[in-house]
Amino acid sequence: MVILTLAVYRMGSPLNDATEAHIMTDIYEAKGYGELTIGFGTKLAILVVDFQRGFVDPSFQLGGGPMMEGAISRTAELLSVARQHRVPVANCYVAYPSAAAAPHWKIKGVAQEFRRDSQEAALDPRIVDFDYDYVFEKSGASAFFQTPLAAYFVKHGVDTVAITGCVTSGCIRASAVDSFQYGFRTMLVEDCSSDNDPQPHLDTLRDVGRRYADIVKAQEVIAQIKSQVRAGV
Amino acid sequence: MVILTLAVYRMGSPLNDATEAHIMTDIYEAKGYGELTIGFGTKLAILVVDFQRGFVDPSFQLGGGPMMEGAISRTAELLSVARQHRVPVANCYVAYPSAAAAPHWKIKGVAQEFRRDSQEAALDPRIVDFDYDYVFEKSGASAFFQTPLAAYFVKHGVDTVAITGCVTSGCIRASAVDSFQYGFRTMLVEDCSSDNDPQPHLDTLRDVGRRYADIVKAQEVIAQIKSQVRAGV
Amino acid sequence: MVILTLAVYRMGSPLNDATEAHIMTDIYEAKGYGELTIGFGTKLAILVVDFQRGFVDPSFQLGGGPMMEGAISRTAELLSVARQHRVPVANCYVAYPSAAAAPHWKIKGVAQEFRRDSQEAALDPRIVDFDYDYVFEKSGASAFFQTPLAAYFVKHGVDTVAITGCVTSGCIRASAVDSFQYGFRTMLVEDCSSDNDPQPHLDTLRDVGRRYADIVKAQEVIAQIKSQVRAGV
Amino acid sequence: MVILTLAVYRMGSPLNDATEAHIMTDIYEAKGYGELTIGFGTKLAILVVDFQRGFVDPSFQLGGGPMMEGAISRTAELLSVARQHRVPVANCYVAYPSAAAAPHWKIKGVAQEFRRDSQEAALDPRIVDFDYDYVFEKSGASAFFQTPLAAYFVKHGVDTVAITGCVTSGCIRASAVDSFQYGFRTMLVEDCSSDNDPQPHLDTLRDVGRRYADIVKAQEVIAQIKSQVRAGV
Repeated sequence: MVILTLAVYRMGSPLNDATEAHIMTDIYEAKGYGELTIGFGTKLAILVVDFQRGFVDPSFQLGGGPMMEGAISRTAELLSVARQHRVPVANCYVAYPSAAAAPHWKIKGVAQEFRRDSQEAALDPRIVDFDYDYVFEKSGASAFFQTPLAAYFVKHGVDTVAITGCVTSGCIRASAVDSFQYGFRTMLVEDCSSDNDPQPHLDTLRDVGRRYADIVKAQEVIAQIKSQVRAGV
Repeated sequence: MVILTLAVYRMGSPLNDATEAHIMTDIYEAKGYGELTIGFGTKLAILVVDFQRGFVDPSFQLGGGPMMEGAISRTAELLSVARQHRVPVANCYVAYPSAAAAPHWKIKGVAQEFRRDSQEAALDPRIVDFDYDYVFEKSGASAFFQTPLAAYFVKHGVDTVAITGCVTSGCIRASAVDSFQYGFRTMLVEDCSSDNDPQPHLDTLRDVGRRYADIVKAQEVIAQIKSQVRAGV
Repeated sequence: MVILTLAVYRMGSPLNDATEAHIMTDIYEAKGYGELTIGFGTKLAILVVDFQRGFVDPSFQLGGGPMMEGAISRTAELLSVARQHRVPVANCYVAYPSAAAAPHWKIKGVAQEFRRDSQEAALDPRIVDFDYDYVFEKSGASAFFQTPLAAYFVKHGVDTVAITGCVTSGCIRASAVDSFQYGFRTMLVEDCSSDNDPQPHLDTLRDVGRRYADIVKAQEVIAQIKSQVRAGV
Repeated sequence: MVILTLAVYRMGSPLNDATEAHIMTDIYEAKGYGELTIGFGTKLAILVVDFQRGFVDPSFQLGGGPMMEGAISRTAELLSVARQHRVPVANCYVAYPSAAAAPHWKIKGVAQEFRRDSQEAALDPRIVDFDYDYVFEKSGASAFFQTPLAAYFVKHGVDTVAITGCVTSGCIRASAVDSFQYGFRTMLVEDCSSDNDPQPHLDTLRDVGRRYADIVKAQEVIAQIKSQVRAGV
């Protein structure tokens, strides 16, 4: 039974209802993991993680992947609605002034190639608006780790953070855990997140969705933004 | 092939060479993930995460699991050697003074039952020495998140952190990411870490081992402690 | 003129209007420091710093001081109103499990005597309500440094933090700087804050009031709490 | 009149033995504040705070001050020796992509004028070496607050931080408190630190020197660097 389900994962299928139902029929479900839904609060922000050329563009060693173009285009659509409704948008990338400034990555490319002001560090123009977004550099995996992001959200009264970007099993996951830890209601936007391989993507949805965040789709976030406007929140 | 490998995972077998080889023959390996080994520095510390009754003891809703007793006994053995050689040991648990103090967990039990001074919060006596260890409470998943742990390690000149405890796909993983982000050399001790389900355990080793930490066994850490003593470090 | 003012400071008089006006007639005022007022937002919390026996009770080496009893009684009055109106209250103390766990204090007493569960660490019963307040231990000067305080405030939608406690030129100041840095509107409640010596108390109001926080009195905070209730915020 | 007062202050400054003796003959000394000396460890780093044109150059509203040129030239001398002996140097400035990204400063100029890539944000060329130093942006007062600085020091095994820059009673002080809180041995280099007004400078040395850091002169740090080299540390 489990083997069959995992085989489905390997085929890279999106997490459909049947799969989701199955995941919960397990030891974690029996213990009550995932039994609560967080839900949106009253002040949403969008966090876009690492949609920078070094990860997006397949001409770079760490760039591209089968889920990337879909995640980018759905994020662009979500951001368009968000900016129109004055929802705060934070947009970050990873970069270092030198390899000596990077932590102990096991990936040679990150410390060696992701230099401040390099092509690898440049945000994809489809997802950034430098006049609107709060744009910042980060040095770790999480967008919150030793960056001013939490303070920015506090100042703007944010209580809910919807996360998009890449890589799901890396910086997205680390950012979702920190968003949760900082007390925010956290939404991982699954169809706006890209992984190099669909399996770790699904594994992340499973682990994060059980503990820290609601797993949502771009259209749910868009509907939420529009409904908040109607409600006058 | 993949199905067979995953079937092996489900049997809860330790990650053997064949499996490891397989994991790396993939898109992540092609991109250079995991190609670097971090290695031990000159000053090691052991971090033990959440070996508290609420997670260890199967009589509690979130307690127990097939990997728990092995992880506890190997951790106890590792800690015995560590304390004998004056290696710093940090030992933490998650607890809250009230549900209002907890972040938005999706697991009802954590916010409701893990009260400061409760049985759920009590560290397992096999892995804690209150006269030797640095014992502290945490409120998030990561042992580093908004706790004095990094400062404790800085004061004691630590450059390498070996992590044990539970749950591998939850607090162990979050702690390993933060240890890496704080600039420490990070070792995830796989046979001292327990998950409710072997699959997320293995997924975590795969994701973390590619990016943030070396995946090691208790005996390697013990050998390292003994060799540092011989070397007079 | 300045000399006279400083003489007034030395007498430990509260900062009156004339004095305040004078302070601003200086090089800092000319540069525009202090020209903005922060003002209250819509969701206030009270932070009480280190009103623990080791600092409050004159029978302890670091305890007591000429401003202590007044600061305690005004804080108790403020907290009574706050709790009545369901304003969040956070209450902290500094303590360590061992001297090895403390950072490099230049004060022998803190690392040596302020032990977890000691008399020195016990909060003064006049200012704490364990059933209502969020009570937590801290290891540094700031109540925010590596503690879950910011996350607690985020979860409860707090945008304004009013700070009371001791010592003004030590932990109060460090906490006010961090509250500001985290993006909160920050109020230093001068007549609820105690220093061993009135001079550093006044110096702190001057430095902090120029940069990071409004300097207010307990009655202003009380009036604000009551007006927010009337306004239905 | 003010000049006379400042002259009085100046008679007390630089903090000579008589002044120091006086400060300590007080209620704080009686309580044991300042009785411990921290001392240098084995791995020093220099932290240079906010020597950026907006604070250094008197043609900017917040720029200049009577202590600035001395602090800059002594810092440049210290850094020259440090770089020659491969001592890590961290160099930061405060800047924002927009006023919306700044916390609630009471100083109009900081949020309004200190823009990323502006003249106000540009480091003084006398104290920065972009090929050697770790250069980073900060958003708060402290150089450690939500920046990768602590991780950089951890990665490079630093145990002692000597702090220079401006303004003593603002960002220097906040950085010294955080350096202490993070577990580092902290040295405030008094003759490499500049304040707009000598009085808050001295008040800061008094408050910080009692609690968190040794107050040292540039020549002591230089001698320490040279002696460590001789000792082969």
